[in-house]
Amino acid sequence: MDPPPVFMKTRDRILQTSLQLFNEQGEPRITTNHIADELDISPGNLYYHFRSKDEIIELLFQQFERRMDTALQTPERRVPNMEDMWLYLHLVFENIWEYRFLYRDLDNILSRNKKLRTHFRRILERKVSTAAAICKGLVDAGVMNATSEDIAALARNIAVVATYWLNFQSVRASASAAPRNDGNNLGLGVYQVLALVAPFLNGEARRLLQQISREYLA
Amino acid sequence: MDPPPVFMKTRDRILQTSLQLFNEQGEPRITTNHIADELDISPGNLYYHFRSKDEIIELLFQQFERRMDTALQTPERRVPNMEDMWLYLHLVFENIWEYRFLYRDLDNILSRNKKLRTHFRRILERKVSTAAAICKGLVDAGVMNATSEDIAALARNIAVVATYWLNFQSVRASASAAPRNDGNNLGLGVYQVLALVAPFLNGEARRLLQQISREYLA
Repeated sequence: MDPPPVFMKTRDRILQTSLQLFNEQGEPRITTNHIADELDISPGNLYYHFRSKDEIIELLFQQFERRMDTALQTPERRVPNMEDMWLYLHLVFENIWEYRFLYRDLDNILSRNKKLRTHFRRILERKVSTAAAICKGLVDAGVMNATSEDIAALARNIAVVATYWLNFQSVRASASAAPRNDGNNLGLGVYQVLALVAPFLNGEARRLLQQISREYLA
Repeated sequence: MDPPPVFMKTRDRILQTSLQLFNEQGEPRITTNHIADELDISPGNLYYHFRSKDEIIELLFQQFERRMDTALQTPERRVPNMEDMWLYLHLVFENIWEYRFLYRDLDNILSRNKKLRTHFRRILERKVSTAAAICKGLVDAGVMNATSEDIAALARNIAVVATYWLNFQSVRASASAAPRNDGNNLGLGVYQVLALVAPFLNGEARRLLQQISREYLA
């Protein structure tokens, strides 16, 4: 792993290195001593910036939440279209991937910290409501055929698959909890969510979506 | 909570009471002392039957696995039909519900025990392959319209939603990790999976499925 650039502030370097270590090795395996070691600073220096590993996790979660809030904006002033759907999925999966340690040990992390649980719930609700708003836009634009009942169920399923895809793949991929590299799974995750949407699309849009879906598989 | 019938063997009473306590309060909150207390037996008596909480969890997992294996049988000697699909979903969700503590702290439990991880992976694979076999049967019977690519993606999505529905609802339902009662979520889970299948069904079967789906919502 490349060390963070030296001109970064120590606090930011600690956050960046923690994120990398958590993602690569799983948050439960990493202690503040590992993080200090990796940065070649003393544990005392690390504690000057963060009192505990949980405080580091909270800060990383705040970064993640800000990025998710940006990803989960529905376009105002115009009807959402297919590009919004792709952009939504792209950004949501990109963020999940960059902060994948949160998703891999979700129950664990959320049961330790009530505040994160409340915030994570907010993110889930927004995943559902943004997916529903985009689908409604596609129906209004005549691209999608779905009742409001269909859309409600579809939006929940989009949120479930987007949220738990990495866990699912990580259990399927290997019997050991150790190596946590699954680069291809992200594209397959987008593919899986597009597969939820596809059957509701009209001819032309459906063919286009299937074409794009296949690119995610490659 | 009613105590188990007194004529049960102590070993079985321990398993049954543990399962109830784990499901109601979450496995991480329950110690072997809680279990002994609830049964009004001494901790020594409990340790005579099980050396640790993890041994109890392993035994409960074995029960769960046997029941899942039965639920995940594809009919031999005949083409699977819509009733097989309902039965599959019904039994899978029923088993998940009866052993819901496993699913609620899945990452946690699987990261502590490699053996369970291997077995859980086997169950996931069977969820995917049985769902795919049933869908293929529906296509052969002319009830479903789907390519083999559609079926592969659909079967994975069925397994993801069936596996993680309770986690999703438990994060959405409440900001606190404490009370774990969510009776309605099970029916909604079946509804969500049926909603994955519905768009691939032909007219008559689709209407029938939507009718049944609504009953799960009630």
